[in-house]
Amino acid sequence: MASKIVVNNYGSFDVTMVKGKGSTCYDINGKKYIDFLAGIAVNCLGHNFKPLVKAISKQAKKQIHVCNYFVSDIGVQYATELLGRTGFDAVYFGNSGAEGNEAAIKLARKYGYLNGGEKRRVIYTLESSFHGRTLATLTATGQDKFHPACFAPYVDCFKTIKANDWEAIKTAFDDTTAALLIECVQGEGGVNIVDAEWAKAAADAARKAGAIVMADEVQTGFGRTGTLLASEQLGFEPEVVSFAKGAAGGVPFGGILIRGKAADVFKAGDHQSTFGGNPLACAAGLVVLNELTKPGFLESVSEKGEYMRKAIAGFGAKCVGEIRGKGLMIGVDMIEPVNAVEVEKKLLAKGLLTSTAGKNTLRIVPPLNISYKEIDEGLSILKDVLLSE
Amino acid sequence: MASKIVVNNYGSFDVTMVKGKGSTCYDINGKKYIDFLAGIAVNCLGHNFKPLVKAISKQAKKQIHVCNYFVSDIGVQYATELLGRTGFDAVYFGNSGAEGNEAAIKLARKYGYLNGGEKRRVIYTLESSFHGRTLATLTATGQDKFHPACFAPYVDCFKTIKANDWEAIKTAFDDTTAALLIECVQGEGGVNIVDAEWAKAAADAARKAGAIVMADEVQTGFGRTGTLLASEQLGFEPEVVSFAKGAAGGVPFGGILIRGKAADVFKAGDHQSTFGGNPLACAAGLVVLNELTKPGFLESVSEKGEYMRKAIAGFGAKCVGEIRGKGLMIGVDMIEPVNAVEVEKKLLAKGLLTSTAGKNTLRIVPPLNISYKEIDEGLSILKDVLLSE
Ligand SMILES: Cc1ncc(COP(=O)(O)O)c(C=O)c1O
Ligand SMILES: Cc1ncc(COP(=O)(O)O)c(C=O)c1O
Repeated sequence: MASKIVVNNYGSFDVTMVKGKGSTCYDINGKKYIDFLAGIAVNCLGHNFKPLVKAISKQAKKQIHVCNYFVSDIGVQYATELLGRTGFDAVYFGNSGAEGNEAAIKLARKYGYLNGGEKRRVIYTLESSFHGRTLATLTATGQDKFHPACFAPYVDCFKTIKANDWEAIKTAFDDTTAALLIECVQGEGGVNIVDAEWAKAAADAARKAGAIVMADEVQTGFGRTGTLLASEQLGFEPEVVSFAKGAAGGVPFGGILIRGKAADVFKAGDHQSTFGGNPLACAAGLVVLNELTKPGFLESVSEKGEYMRKAIAGFGAKCVGEIRGKGLMIGVDMIEPVNAVEVEKKLLAKGLLTSTAGKNTLRIVPPLNISYKEIDEGLSILKDVLLSE
Repeated sequence: MASKIVVNNYGSFDVTMVKGKGSTCYDINGKKYIDFLAGIAVNCLGHNFKPLVKAISKQAKKQIHVCNYFVSDIGVQYATELLGRTGFDAVYFGNSGAEGNEAAIKLARKYGYLNGGEKRRVIYTLESSFHGRTLATLTATGQDKFHPACFAPYVDCFKTIKANDWEAIKTAFDDTTAALLIECVQGEGGVNIVDAEWAKAAADAARKAGAIVMADEVQTGFGRTGTLLASEQLGFEPEVVSFAKGAAGGVPFGGILIRGKAADVFKAGDHQSTFGGNPLACAAGLVVLNELTKPGFLESVSEKGEYMRKAIAGFGAKCVGEIRGKGLMIGVDMIEPVNAVEVEKKLLAKGLLTSTAGKNTLRIVPPLNISYKEIDEGLSILKDVLLSE
């Protein structure tokens, strides 16, 4: 009932969350859960992380929101640090992954227009990608199931290409291509990893045709895969990177990082957002950035990810197929007839939060600062359930 | 320099805001400003409002974000109160005005599809309206200047109609119309008031043709015009209302309220948002809702608005043309050659925050709980500047 009025469009489980501490959550009945989900890769510093709570409380007292006619002290500080850490030239702030990608799409279109006129408008995305729920980002999403007839007509000038398809990139891009948008690890699509060599070759081909290259790092960005950005590992050096999810540790935030040929495309008035870059989100973002760039933090994300993947492989569970992932973005294929959604439900009942993605994949995206104690506790629940399948 | 890296697309003033208290803000040099802007109608409870700061701090400690696979205690509580106070049947939560309107657009499209198939897809918006910066909401925006060639192609199946045009509504709507979307008071368009009789007649005509009626209350909603929703005053009873801006007192928040024929359109999976309805925003939203619905609060908004409009009319300034508005959403037309942007700059220099809208209108949208002391202090600066023009 309650969940019906709030969110009649999620098909949510009947669980009412109340609080958390570290990577452990509690529902309204006091039931405890180990958090292998982090609000779908959002709560990157877990729950009730002191420096984050402190920064939010302090900023709420100073000033929650300043409109973009002005800047805020914390906004300038955050942007400066973010650009310093990532090496990008400029940043645009919005409030979600969809808003980040909307900005990227508009930037790509204007880039195309400035470098080829009305002809250069096509944005390529990858098959099985996910880019958001607004009309344009939905169109960009490379999965037919997200394009039901009821929301048509969709937006023109989007095309898809298959990740890791070497043939396709030989001919796909031409003087009608404005941009190639690569989701570095396809999260919603099933934790599918894009091959680094292919990504670089695809980016080269797109650039040769006069297009810019963009990365959707809404899910992979901000340390999730063991580097600040996943595109660092893939090495294709995108001109535009969209981010959101963990960027402000749970406070709604998103945007794009911009560099090189893409840095001067947006002029005053081209794209805006009322809340974008508000002090509250920037204060939270600064804590995240500081934490992630502490010596050893990102390495520990890679280590924990490897530890978890190895442990799961070691269960010897018959229902487990391929185990994929980078850092703490892990996909565990379920072998039919075992169904990932059913496994997710059993895990939930036993006190472990996970999610599913793609065709039949269990997805694990815990807080990046999860303790090994919590990892082991969660793995033990996972082992029990997987072995009983 | 600083403002260049942060927001190279706003053309911001060179002012770095640091903190606020009530309706008074301070920049990095300690300069004081009276806030007649509220972050463009966002900080509805002003700055450093104790119950809001307390609620945010408390919730940040409990749980900032819970994904929509579950609900949160505070989310259920907020949604229940919101529906109780507004009389709507359901609510969808996003993170901005643009996201609210994207949800409304998708809902309207699906409604049309269910009630007329592929034929019923057209969404009418008003000339001079503003609905957001994502590709679909930009297309919906009824102002040509927002549709530069560089972002084309725009989204199909949007049409505009002129507000208060009685002839137009006789023939505009037919079996291709999915929805009519009315911006109750056109904020960005220049604080233009839609006539209540016309709005009702337009809504009747749209409904007769089988369409639903929606209100964009991103700027007018949550007490701004002296009622919880401005559509209450206009009386056309929209099936869908989008909101954002002040809803959570500055924390990024937005969404749509839904009722009647529109309430059952979205099904699980139709529309989602990672951050939408997060506990932090809901906790802030609850404080706003409680404050706004305290006895006398909304009446005081109307009174303050009238007080300010009367005072401005009483200045006897030659540059002042029409003074429009509802509640604390006020537009003061400047008579050429006096330019509203130049006036805004002078006010800023003298310590008063305002903004401009439409062709040549000074816009005043202060915190709803601004004190008469601060009102008088701001009006005295405004008087000085307007009389010197
Ligand atoms: C890769 C990717 N892009 C975009 C989005 C959309 O982000 P949001 O839900 O914040 O709009 C998501 C959300 O899951 C995502 O995983
Ligand atoms: C009436 C109206 N609708 C939509 C929007 C877009 O809201 P946002 O900037 O939060 O996306 C605005 C913003 O000014 C607005 O005034």
